[in-house]
Amino acid sequence: MAKAADGIGPDGIGPDWIGVDWQEARVCAHVIGPDGAVLETRTAPGGGTAAPAVIADLLKDLLPHAGSLPVIACGLPTFGVPGGAGAALRPLPCPPLPAVLHRVTGTDPRLALYAIPGLRQDRPVDELRGPETRIAGFLAGAPDFDGVLCLPGPISTWARISAGEVVTFTTTLTGEMFDLLAHRSSLRHGLPPDGHDGGQDPEAFKSALADILSRPERLATMLCALRGVGTHKRARLSRLSGLLIGAELAATRPWWLGQSVAVIGGGDLAQRYADALAAQGVQATISGANMTLAGLARARALLRGA
Amino acid sequence: MAKAADGIGPDGIGPDWIGVDWQEARVCAHVIGPDGAVLETRTAPGGGTAAPAVIADLLKDLLPHAGSLPVIACGLPTFGVPGGAGAALRPLPCPPLPAVLHRVTGTDPRLALYAIPGLRQDRPVDELRGPETRIAGFLAGAPDFDGVLCLPGPISTWARISAGEVVTFTTTLTGEMFDLLAHRSSLRHGLPPDGHDGGQDPEAFKSALADILSRPERLATMLCALRGVGTHKRARLSRLSGLLIGAELAATRPWWLGQSVAVIGGGDLAQRYADALAAQGVQATISGANMTLAGLARARALLRGA
Repeated sequence: MAKAADGIGPDGIGPDWIGVDWQEARVCAHVIGPDGAVLETRTAPGGGTAAPAVIADLLKDLLPHAGSLPVIACGLPTFGVPGGAGAALRPLPCPPLPAVLHRVTGTDPRLALYAIPGLRQDRPVDELRGPETRIAGFLAGAPDFDGVLCLPGPISTWARISAGEVVTFTTTLTGEMFDLLAHRSSLRHGLPPDGHDGGQDPEAFKSALADILSRPERLATMLCALRGVGTHKRARLSRLSGLLIGAELAATRPWWLGQSVAVIGGGDLAQRYADALAAQGVQATISGANMTLAGLARARALLRGA
Repeated sequence: MAKAADGIGPDGIGPDWIGVDWQEARVCAHVIGPDGAVLETRTAPGGGTAAPAVIADLLKDLLPHAGSLPVIACGLPTFGVPGGAGAALRPLPCPPLPAVLHRVTGTDPRLALYAIPGLRQDRPVDELRGPETRIAGFLAGAPDFDGVLCLPGPISTWARISAGEVVTFTTTLTGEMFDLLAHRSSLRHGLPPDGHDGGQDPEAFKSALADILSRPERLATMLCALRGVGTHKRARLSRLSGLLIGAELAATRPWWLGQSVAVIGGGDLAQRYADALAAQGVQATISGANMTLAGLARARALLRGA
């Protein structure tokens, strides 16, 4: 952290804005230079409720310089903050970002905090706080995209996009369930101690996927039967991943069947979703760049009036 | 604990045997008198691997008196104990208890430890460590039962019983998943802080059950949509319970449809299973007594040659 702070000095070379990605498990603050480069990334544990206070604390050494240094945040929690940051969710259908960003009031006056509002859907009732920014990042690079976006993560989101708007979405707890079952359930005794990366046994992943997609009603017994599957811990972990991603695909079938699908996300997880969709005859593209950062940058441009 | 130890003295009135119920979360040791009454129950955290050492420590003040004081345990873990306690699982079909109980070797010589072996099934591969004893307890009181036993718990077990034998079984992680989702997933923000008792809103439970049984492939999205269901936290918790028990019933349909079913377990949870089955047209009986203790007592009688 000290390294980047060195760049903030009387010569005027310093951060231009700060983008904050508030997630369940952690908060990331990206300090961005005038050329759009990330000068520094700071993190704090997430899960709390007093989001503006946590952000002010995370950036406290920058605040004396702040003045017009805008801080743009997505994913802000509202629980415990009545009418607070991010409270005004925008109803669908709508573009992922609003035309105007409002400054969050009631915080440290040196903190020029702008919250990207989440999206809400009435039927069925559900809400997004964060994925709308990743969607905005994707659409900044593909403004004419018409189809379905798959955003894997602790909570997976599937969103239908048309004419630059989010039309409808659905969510699953796939990533959270994978972590809980791998690390905290009695299945953990039969899984590798590191508990992640289910991509190491593609055959086990593939057969789990086929099993659950042909008998999705059997999820409960198939998960528990993992206690007895062979002796290879890695194969079990891949099977767990396959069962849960398969259960997600079973639940979201109308979202991908015969659709133009783009998977947003980096690394092995996005590839696994694309592989799973390919096994069902859907050729999805993968957009691996940091779409949250791209979406925050799009919001920064909005703030400038661009 | 001191109270019961007072009863162990030179007058010869003291424990007759000790029954140990080893579960994932905790170990219970029941000290039983000559008339079959529970003199005392001791507990220690479960989850460990060196089961005989934990049991010896839990009973250490009784061991000097031990000699012929038999300790009969069910549910013993084998992980980390190659060839150790409970390692020899018995293949199906078989009665829930073996004809002969073997003493566990390699432990404190004062500890006369007898392990009730678990059951194993080859197709599909799965195993029971503990439920076989509850089944034995139930069959001690209903030796002619022919049908399916439903044993709810952290891990739910469904077992087909015929002619006094366990013919086949299946398991689900329903109870563990309920606890993990209610306490440790992002759903917890919308649930009551105590996080248990989903029986408080019978309508929410019932409608969740109907929803999942009619569209079992939608579990992943229905669970995540709990984030948005109404504003009543208790209703959400009941819905979570209904979705997970419903998913269990969807996965185990051939086990209860048109079958004679007995639910083993006390309190609200067993009643919820019976209610769920009733909603599907199956009138299950409930056996609420402590069937683990009854099964351990049956094993004690076996040891005596009764």
